Amino acid sequence: MKRIGILTSGGDAPGMNAAIRAVVRSCIYHDIEVYGIYYGYQGLIDGEIKQLDIGSVGDIIQKGGTMLFSSRSEDFKTEEGQQKAIEQLNHYGIEGLVIIGGDGSFKGAKKLTEKGYPCIGIPGTIDNDIAGTDYTIGFDTALNTVIDAVDKIRDTATSHERIYVIEAMGRDAGDLALWAGLAGGAESILIPEIKTSYDEVIQKIKRGHERGKRHSIIMLAEGAGNAYDIADRIKDQLNFSTRVTILGHTQRGGSPSAYDRVIASRFGAFAIELLLNGKQGRMVGLENNQFVDHDLTGNFDKNNQEIEELYNLSSQLSI
Amino acid sequence: MKRIGILTSGGDAPGMNAAIRAVVRSCIYHDIEVYGIYYGYQGLIDGEIKQLDIGSVGDIIQKGGTMLFSSRSEDFKTEEGQQKAIEQLNHYGIEGLVIIGGDGSFKGAKKLTEKGYPCIGIPGTIDNDIAGTDYTIGFDTALNTVIDAVDKIRDTATSHERIYVIEAMGRDAGDLALWAGLAGGAESILIPEIKTSYDEVIQKIKRGHERGKRHSIIMLAEGAGNAYDIADRIKDQLNFSTRVTILGHTQRGGSPSAYDRVIASRFGAFAIELLLNGKQGRMVGLENNQFVDHDLTGNFDKNNQEIEELYNLSSQLSI
Amino acid sequence: MKRIGILTSGGDAPGMNAAIRAVVRSCIYHDIEVYGIYYGYQGLIDGEIKQLDIGSVGDIIQKGGTMLFSSRSEDFKTEEGQQKAIEQLNHYGIEGLVIIGGDGSFKGAKKLTEKGYPCIGIPGTIDNDIAGTDYTIGFDTALNTVIDAVDKIRDTATSHERIYVIEAMGRDAGDLALWAGLAGGAESILIPEIKTSYDEVIQKIKRGHERGKRHSIIMLAEGAGNAYDIADRIKDQLNFSTRVTILGHTQRGGSPSAYDRVIASRFGAFAIELLLNGKQGRMVGLENNQFVDHDLTGNFDKNNQEIEELYNLSSQLSI
Amino acid sequence: MKRIGILTSGGDAPGMNAAIRAVVRSCIYHDIEVYGIYYGYQGLIDGEIKQLDIGSVGDIIQKGGTMLFSSRSEDFKTEEGQQKAIEQLNHYGIEGLVIIGGDGSFKGAKKLTEKGYPCIGIPGTIDNDIAGTDYTIGFDTALNTVIDAVDKIRDTATSHERIYVIEAMGRDAGDLALWAGLAGGAESILIPEIKTSYDEVIQKIKRGHERGKRHSIIMLAEGAGNAYDIADRIKDQLNFSTRVTILGHTQRGGSPSAYDRVIASRFGAFAIELLLNGKQGRMVGLENNQFVDHDLTGNFDKNNQEIEELYNLSSQLSI
Repeated sequence: MKRIGILTSGGDAPGMNAAIRAVVRSCIYHDIEVYGIYYGYQGLIDGEIKQLDIGSVGDIIQKGGTMLFSSRSEDFKTEEGQQKAIEQLNHYGIEGLVIIGGDGSFKGAKKLTEKGYPCIGIPGTIDNDIAGTDYTIGFDTALNTVIDAVDKIRDTATSHERIYVIEAMGRDAGDLALWAGLAGGAESILIPEIKTSYDEVIQKIKRGHERGKRHSIIMLAEGAGNAYDIADRIKDQLNFSTRVTILGHTQRGGSPSAYDRVIASRFGAFAIELLLNGKQGRMVGLENNQFVDHDLTGNFDKNNQEIEELYNLSSQLSI
Repeated sequence: MKRIGILTSGGDAPGMNAAIRAVVRSCIYHDIEVYGIYYGYQGLIDGEIKQLDIGSVGDIIQKGGTMLFSSRSEDFKTEEGQQKAIEQLNHYGIEGLVIIGGDGSFKGAKKLTEKGYPCIGIPGTIDNDIAGTDYTIGFDTALNTVIDAVDKIRDTATSHERIYVIEAMGRDAGDLALWAGLAGGAESILIPEIKTSYDEVIQKIKRGHERGKRHSIIMLAEGAGNAYDIADRIKDQLNFSTRVTILGHTQRGGSPSAYDRVIASRFGAFAIELLLNGKQGRMVGLENNQFVDHDLTGNFDKNNQEIEELYNLSSQLSI
Repeated sequence: MKRIGILTSGGDAPGMNAAIRAVVRSCIYHDIEVYGIYYGYQGLIDGEIKQLDIGSVGDIIQKGGTMLFSSRSEDFKTEEGQQKAIEQLNHYGIEGLVIIGGDGSFKGAKKLTEKGYPCIGIPGTIDNDIAGTDYTIGFDTALNTVIDAVDKIRDTATSHERIYVIEAMGRDAGDLALWAGLAGGAESILIPEIKTSYDEVIQKIKRGHERGKRHSIIMLAEGAGNAYDIADRIKDQLNFSTRVTILGHTQRGGSPSAYDRVIASRFGAFAIELLLNGKQGRMVGLENNQFVDHDLTGNFDKNNQEIEELYNLSSQLSI
Repeated sequence: MKRIGILTSGGDAPGMNAAIRAVVRSCIYHDIEVYGIYYGYQGLIDGEIKQLDIGSVGDIIQKGGTMLFSSRSEDFKTEEGQQKAIEQLNHYGIEGLVIIGGDGSFKGAKKLTEKGYPCIGIPGTIDNDIAGTDYTIGFDTALNTVIDAVDKIRDTATSHERIYVIEAMGRDAGDLALWAGLAGGAESILIPEIKTSYDEVIQKIKRGHERGKRHSIIMLAEGAGNAYDIADRIKDQLNFSTRVTILGHTQRGGSPSAYDRVIASRFGAFAIELLLNGKQGRMVGLENNQFVDHDLTGNFDKNNQEIEELYNLSSQLSI
């Protein structure tokens, strides 16, 4: 393999730049040329492609977002779009690809692999919801962003009798809200994986209040309810003052944490190692502290055991 | 004057602890006893009062919130409540008071002064909306919290074609949203003081898009509109993807910035100086970099000239 | 077991408070009384002991340092000191103990266990240098503190032709400097585990300069050299301007990161579980993402394989 | 005036990018072409010059350092160097210049003005030591960097009996150390403007210790002593454990604070306004909250009154 392409796809996540840097410099270390494909699969179709050298990835390890930009591409879902992508790969002489992104991005990588262009996927999303790896790039940074918000609210919370609802990202996955709730000492946590009725939350607040608790923080994954609905219900039933914070896309940004940078760097170097060893259609992962690789679109069931353990621990500690 | 009381009232703000520390230590420096009154005017009525020494205010200068807690008191608005407060002051032998808070808190301070208990007010609120001073404690910290959110969104914004709406605090005052919009490089700013229609915002986004701009950040003071309404209008009229962030009470927390700590310390020491010089019914302020004092409930019109200048500058720079 | 004591010993580390909170609340959850022993083993000897309830550990999860304070005790190394400690345990009816600290602290815990007072150790030190666990509380926070410094220096480094030397903690262990060097993109890393001569560092800088590199960052563990010596050597031999940063005890402070809080919480709950299951003389650990327990003073050789891998990766990526 | 050049010179400071952005966009707003001169006066001599458009300064307001880079130029001090610089200005048709930097940089600006190329200076240095303005770009950010370090040390300081010495920048100016000492609650502050003997510092520590104080933080401006010397003296005379932190160039980096961005933006826009109004050989400044302009190399005595006030306040509050 003489020439490798790299792209980021789907939602961006802090740490993607560290992975890009590792891919680029590992290629150069192994005397392979490396091409950056800008704007994800759409950019591949449109030929937004440029060779990268050592300096191209200087001073990016500490930056949020992705220097290659990202996008979602409808075109690439069509046979025609994929054909154009392949023409670009041929035009640039790119023989293999590294794709940084989530489940959706990996489907595209699988397609390209099947058509003769070996791909390796690197899991990158703040949701930490990709089966086959314990960790996805961006999760740790996003988590620290969320607990920073919780800490700030806690400062002011102690001064007032009030209930705070904080909404974190996570339509289908509660990892972010759960870890943040545990790390932030939230009184209640609502996540998609574990059904909790608003009434249970309200009863817990009521019991806390009877024991003298003057304020409570409720951490909510966006997929587990609506922050304003919960706040209204609490106000209606308990007549407590409530305040809502919607963190939104602040969770996607920020300088990546040390952990995200290190794991991203290792994923990037490992992806190149796999390609050089003739592997294809694989994603890299971290399982029980070991770097592993799996079929790109393997049908893994995400194990919810840790989620239940952390949820129970949080309940035990937030009494 | 032998014994002084101190309380914080209304919404808390980062830096209040630095002011408390300065009041307490300035008293001790001048051989005056100082009593902390917890939970604002309500705590004064209820007798939540304790003597403070040097150590009481150790290691608090860096902490958010207020170590004396705060509250809003309906009781204190009644003649009966004020009578009870005075009984407590007599009981503890407190001859003068320092009140840290906003306009509402100063009305109570005025009342106590009129009844023979000299008060000095220290302006503390993240809104920076107290007439008679260019600065209120907490504003700088809150501002940095808001721009931290803007910066994080900017990281991810560059990767996608999308419009972001960020709602900052400020029901009647736009300082926070305006400074944050300028410092964060927001494309549009909506504040209560300057009427901007949703249509103007939408037209600006449209023009920007035609010039190739792929993303825009709209900074909104809560008193100038509803973030979800704006986002919906943009989506309806321009068919752009939109995302909303509601910062909420995160803006009230956090370790105070250096500027807040220094100004709060100076306000605190100056308040004690005024009391010792026999002044009463005054609030301390900072005007044109000079420490001044004014009548506690003077009817100042807030000068909106700086707001207009900054608004125009922001428009000029966010082209 | 009806009554458990908890203390922190040796150097403090961010996250210790989260562990204390978890120990206290897990005890209460299991209807066990819990006593805080202040100032480590010295406080145990001196009887600085107080019962803790749910509220005692409220709002501490986000705080640096340890609410129980710490100390090093010469007295406890003597038979007499240990005897006094045991008298205090008997006096307070404390039947088991949780000790948060490092190797030295665990030796004391071993002693107490042998004398009939079952102890469980929780590894807490920013150095991450305790054998038998992949992780020690505080490491992640310290690491992020170090890379924050590296990032700041990088901002200014790009503007000037200059060599920066940053000294991180680590007399015998290079984890902090190594991870920080990798995460910060340092050009050279010097750690105790891997011999690197000053000359190698200087040659690398020289080669980089010949390729057009205008600035370099050297990350140094304090046990691997002297920052000023290296800086002087570079200046002498290459005539480059150099600047030194000594991070010192800033690395011990700061609000704990999310990861530190979660792991500390899990360690704390797990320690109580072990005590309740009749285990004694054990330390909790995290190995390959599993929570394990080992003999408190087991003679583990720390595996340096990961250190070598990360060091090589860093060399490969900082070309 | 049709075409303006901009350069940054001397030590960089956070917020310089915000000033560059304001200069560039103000020019474009007024239909003036603007050229970026890279690497300061040396780059002017060498012709490192490029036209800037709106997009050139997009997404830089939040970045540390200077996108135009900086340098110190020996060549520009010679008549020959200046002649080459003028040839470049003529070649590019640059009629006026904005120079961001410190005293030294302004001397060069004065020279160019005298030779017929009107210059306006913008004060930018973290030292806040330029006469004729109350504020220089970068000071607020650097200050917050220093107090962040103080806060972190305070976290760990409370756990141990120990004296911490923190060295901040400031060879001739103590503003940074003084404000940081006050804002961080340091027990002693040593700055070049106010003579304090090591013995006074040691006596204060001793008295504090006798009153029960277990730890002290000493804030030192680099121009007022040597951190290691003080630490050694304390150890020798009091036998206390001491720890040193040298912040070094971390103080030059970091994302600029809100205040730095706003003031820098206003300075930038104001500089262009002055040039358009035919002013030359002026520096912009902020005095008593008013934007003013002064002769570029006016011989202002820096007023040390505020320094004395803050020093005394700090002494009063750190009892």
